[in-house]
Amino acid sequence: MKNYLLRLSFIGTRYSGWQIQPGVPTVQGELTKVLEEVLGERVKVVGCCRTDAGVHAKDYVANFKSSKDFEEEKLLKALNSLLPKDIGVSEVREVPEDFNARFSVKGKEYVYRIWTAPWRDPFLYPFSLHIPGGLEVKAVEEAMDVIRGKHDFSGFAKLEDEKNTVIELEAELEVRGHLIELRFRATHFLRHMVRRLSGALIWVGRGKMDPKELEKFLSGESFPYTAPPQGLTLERVFL
Amino acid sequence: MKNYLLRLSFIGTRYSGWQIQPGVPTVQGELTKVLEEVLGERVKVVGCCRTDAGVHAKDYVANFKSSKDFEEEKLLKALNSLLPKDIGVSEVREVPEDFNARFSVKGKEYVYRIWTAPWRDPFLYPFSLHIPGGLEVKAVEEAMDVIRGKHDFSGFAKLEDEKNTVIELEAELEVRGHLIELRFRATHFLRHMVRRLSGALIWVGRGKMDPKELEKFLSGESFPYTAPPQGLTLERVFL
Repeated sequence: MKNYLLRLSFIGTRYSGWQIQPGVPTVQGELTKVLEEVLGERVKVVGCCRTDAGVHAKDYVANFKSSKDFEEEKLLKALNSLLPKDIGVSEVREVPEDFNARFSVKGKEYVYRIWTAPWRDPFLYPFSLHIPGGLEVKAVEEAMDVIRGKHDFSGFAKLEDEKNTVIELEAELEVRGHLIELRFRATHFLRHMVRRLSGALIWVGRGKMDPKELEKFLSGESFPYTAPPQGLTLERVFL
Repeated sequence: MKNYLLRLSFIGTRYSGWQIQPGVPTVQGELTKVLEEVLGERVKVVGCCRTDAGVHAKDYVANFKSSKDFEEEKLLKALNSLLPKDIGVSEVREVPEDFNARFSVKGKEYVYRIWTAPWRDPFLYPFSLHIPGGLEVKAVEEAMDVIRGKHDFSGFAKLEDEKNTVIELEAELEVRGHLIELRFRATHFLRHMVRRLSGALIWVGRGKMDPKELEKFLSGESFPYTAPPQGLTLERVFL
């Protein structure tokens, strides 16, 4: 058996997330179908994480094992030519047998994008949340100081399994003209965590909540607002 | 009568270009329809130039005259809320009565984007021409030296009217990773000129033509290849 790593990127708009589900388009589903067509056998594609419906990825890592011996370059070409245009495979590489995209990934970086001009930028529209009027950047910075570092992020998660909820989080704010980027980096994330953290920063930035109030959601209380998926992009996966 | 300037941007993929035509979606058509809805009267929208079907604009200038007295901010908001999501209006401003988008514009900047990696980047795919294997950059630079400056560009145009065909052209090549950007600036352009110039640079970059050969198309001979529209974006309009 050979073990292949795939690096890919996708526009999440059309997809019900990464994970295969019956009756709806998913990235894992498209990939599994196309791999079957190319390899002539059904393989199990393991992804580095779930993604919510509508979330994008500029970088994503997956792997699959196959009994077929395929040239990496050939497979890359075949996948890109058969996959829908909103998915691209940037790398195919044979990896050691024990590599597993879910468990071997060392960290991830997400960016939540907010477009703050009163008007719409059609090029950014599918990849950002539009908040005309913008955010109070200084307050968002203060809120980031609260969430940055090692905390129990259960209050920002839809908990499902007994994953370690204490996470060391790096967070940065970047303002480029009318675009605000909230950047988050950690070894792992909990389900909905980035969208809820972004939601909290948005509430603070719109004056709906004091930066200090965030502290209580780091000690058990559940934060109620999940920012919409289209603003979120998985930006980098660290191996 | 009041004269209003509009600054807009659009993703050209779905449109048969700027200019209104019966039975097909056009940017001028969408704008005219929405303005009629907002103003309650049919107005003539004048654009700064035609654009080919499938060509994008990050900046575009238009104007229209109306007997209705509308607050600029209100009109901006109404247009953005009623227009399709792939068109955005970034500015509405009252201008002197003699302003005409077609004749008052002082210059334009176009960028032709070429994606050269062997794989597809889904985020750039709709806005670039994919040439896996890339271009010989040094040869393209040499070819740019030939076309840069003041020339008669009839050989690169689909001529239709007696516009001045002698144009002072600025041209630059930028390479950012796998992306090549061909940037063109001039007071005015002839029909198909940027796509044909890009086509010529692509031929040179792929070794299909010598940079020096471009000279003959600057002295009357017609260049035959028009690069596809999706790679082209009207980047800036100078007023």
